[in-house]
Amino acid sequence: MLELQKSEIQSLFDLSAGAAAIRQAYIAQAQQRVQVPDVTYLGFPEANGDCHVKSGYIEGTEGFVVKIATGFYNNPAQGLASSNGMNMLFCAKTGQPLAFLNDGGWLTDIRTGLGGALTTLALARADFRKVLIVGGGLQARHQARCLMHLAENRPIAFAIWARNPEQAEQTAQDLRSDGIDANAACDLQQACGQADVIITTTPAKSPLLQASWIRAGTHITAVGADCPGKQELELPLVLRADLCVCDLAAQSLAHGEFQTAAAAAGLAVDEVISIGDILSGAHPGRTSDTQLTIADLTGLAVQDAAVSLSVYRAAQMIKAKEDILT
Amino acid sequence: MLELQKSEIQSLFDLSAGAAAIRQAYIAQAQQRVQVPDVTYLGFPEANGDCHVKSGYIEGTEGFVVKIATGFYNNPAQGLASSNGMNMLFCAKTGQPLAFLNDGGWLTDIRTGLGGALTTLALARADFRKVLIVGGGLQARHQARCLMHLAENRPIAFAIWARNPEQAEQTAQDLRSDGIDANAACDLQQACGQADVIITTTPAKSPLLQASWIRAGTHITAVGADCPGKQELELPLVLRADLCVCDLAAQSLAHGEFQTAAAAAGLAVDEVISIGDILSGAHPGRTSDTQLTIADLTGLAVQDAAVSLSVYRAAQMIKAKEDILT
Repeated sequence: MLELQKSEIQSLFDLSAGAAAIRQAYIAQAQQRVQVPDVTYLGFPEANGDCHVKSGYIEGTEGFVVKIATGFYNNPAQGLASSNGMNMLFCAKTGQPLAFLNDGGWLTDIRTGLGGALTTLALARADFRKVLIVGGGLQARHQARCLMHLAENRPIAFAIWARNPEQAEQTAQDLRSDGIDANAACDLQQACGQADVIITTTPAKSPLLQASWIRAGTHITAVGADCPGKQELELPLVLRADLCVCDLAAQSLAHGEFQTAAAAAGLAVDEVISIGDILSGAHPGRTSDTQLTIADLTGLAVQDAAVSLSVYRAAQMIKAKEDILT
Repeated sequence: MLELQKSEIQSLFDLSAGAAAIRQAYIAQAQQRVQVPDVTYLGFPEANGDCHVKSGYIEGTEGFVVKIATGFYNNPAQGLASSNGMNMLFCAKTGQPLAFLNDGGWLTDIRTGLGGALTTLALARADFRKVLIVGGGLQARHQARCLMHLAENRPIAFAIWARNPEQAEQTAQDLRSDGIDANAACDLQQACGQADVIITTTPAKSPLLQASWIRAGTHITAVGADCPGKQELELPLVLRADLCVCDLAAQSLAHGEFQTAAAAAGLAVDEVISIGDILSGAHPGRTSDTQLTIADLTGLAVQDAAVSLSVYRAAQMIKAKEDILT
C-alpha cells in the first residue's frame, strides 16, 4: 500500500490531471455510473466537533475511496487546525488498500477548487475577463488559482471582496505573488456590477449578493453553502437565473445554495441541470451572452475518488519510471 | 499519528484488556451511550466483492473509530486473502487521527472471539465444562482461545465439529498445540447432547442444530449468521429458548440468527435481552441450571472502537515507559 503525507501529495498532484479526473467524475455522477452511499455523520457537541465519512466509486475506475473528514472548531484555540482529513483508496477488483493519503483535508480543498474552476469555465461567457471572488479564505485562493490554471493563457483580472478588507487585501497580495492579476474590492455592490463571473466562497448564513447588483450575462459559481442554514445569494437572484446548475441536485436543494429556492419557491430537482450533463454535451448549458447562470456546488464523494486516483496514478507513474531506470 | 501493522497489533494486543474494553462497549451500547451511524455499503458484483464502513464511538472514551472492511470472494483464486480491513482511530476531542491500525481484519476476528467468550461466560451454567464448537474455521479457533483465556483455570473440554471432518481434526490439533483440551467430534447430534455450551461459527444458510438434540441447561452462542439468509439454529430451537440474548436486537432480528424467529414467529425487539444489560446487572440473565439460553452476536462498531482503543492504550503505555527510561 502506498502511503503519502500531505507534502508528498501536494508535490505529486497535477492540476490538469486532477481536473480531467473531476470532469469524468461529474459526467459519471450525472449519468449515474457511480456508487455514493449516504454520508456517515458523528457529532461531538462537547468538543464543538464533527466527523463525516464519505465513500465513492466511479464505475470502471481502478479504485474506490473512503474519505474521513473532521471539523473541530475549538481546535484553533489550542493551536491546532480545525479541519483534518484523509482519503483511503482501495482496489475495486480485490478490495486491497491501494493508498493511504494523509492529506489533512488538502485534497478536499483542491477538488473543490478544481470543481469550481471547471464549472466556471463551462458556464461563463466565452469572453469573460473580470472575476469577482467573494470571501478571503483558503477556498478563495484555490478557486482563483485553479481557474487561472485551467483557463491557461486567458487574461483574467480578479477582484477579491471579503467582509474584512484586510483579509481581501492579503488574499489579493498572495495571488499577485503567484503572478495572478488580483486586487481587493472595497464595495461589493460595485464589484458585482463590474464582474463577468462571481465565485462565492463564504460560510454566510444570510445572503450577501442581491439580484439587482448582477448584470445580465454574469455567471455565478457558489461553493460556500454546504449545510442547512447557509446562503450566499438572495432568493430573487436565484429566481432570476436563466440556468440553475449543480453538481448533485438532491444535495443542492437539501443543504446547498438552492435550499432556500427549493423551500421558499419550490425549485425542483428537474429544474436544476447537472454540471456533468453540460460537460458531456448532453445539455447545451449557456446559449446566449445575456443569460444569467448560477451553479451551486456542494461537493461529491466521486470528486474525492477522482483526485485520490489522480494522486495514485501519478505515484504509480513515477514508480514505473524508477523501475525502468533501475 | 500512531501507525501499526498487523504483526505489531497482534503483539501489542492484550486479551484481558481487550475483553474489559468490549465488556464496557456492550454495556454502553445497551445503555445507548454510543454513536453508531448506519453501516455504509459499496458493492462490486463483477469482482464478487463488497466493502462495509462502520463507525462507532463509546461516549466518554478518548477516541472514535472508522473501520473499513472488504470481502472480495474471488481473491483466493489469485492467491490473495478474501478479507481485508483497517481501523482508523480519531481523537474525540480534536478530531485528529490517533492511530492507523492496518490489521487486515484481525481486530474484527479477535473482537468477535472476545465478544463470544464474554457472552458465553455470562450465560453458561456456573459448572459448565464441555464446550462444543460448530465449525472449523478461524472463528472456531478464536472462540476457543478467547473463552479459554477468559475462563482462566477452569477445566474446559472442547469438542470441534465441522462439515469436513479433516477440518475439525485440524482445528482440534491446532488448539491442542496451544495446550487446550480439544478433540474432533464426528456426530453433531451426539456432540450437542453432551455439551454444556455450544458455540456456532459457520456461514450456514440452512439450520445445523435441531431443538431435540439440545439438553436443558445448555447455553448456545451463535456468531455465524451476519446477513439475510444465514441460519445455524432451527426455528423450534430458538423458540424453545428460555432466554434470547443478543448484542443489538435491531441487527439480530434483521440479519442475525434471530431473523427467522422474527420473520416466521414474530420474535420482537423487547423479547430479546441485550448482553450489555446482563453484563451490567440490569438484567439477571440465567436464573436456573435448567434454562436453555441462546445468544446471537452480529458484531458492533463499538466493539471495533473498544479493541482499537485497547491497542492504542497499550502502545501509549509502552511509549510512556520508554520516555521515562530515556
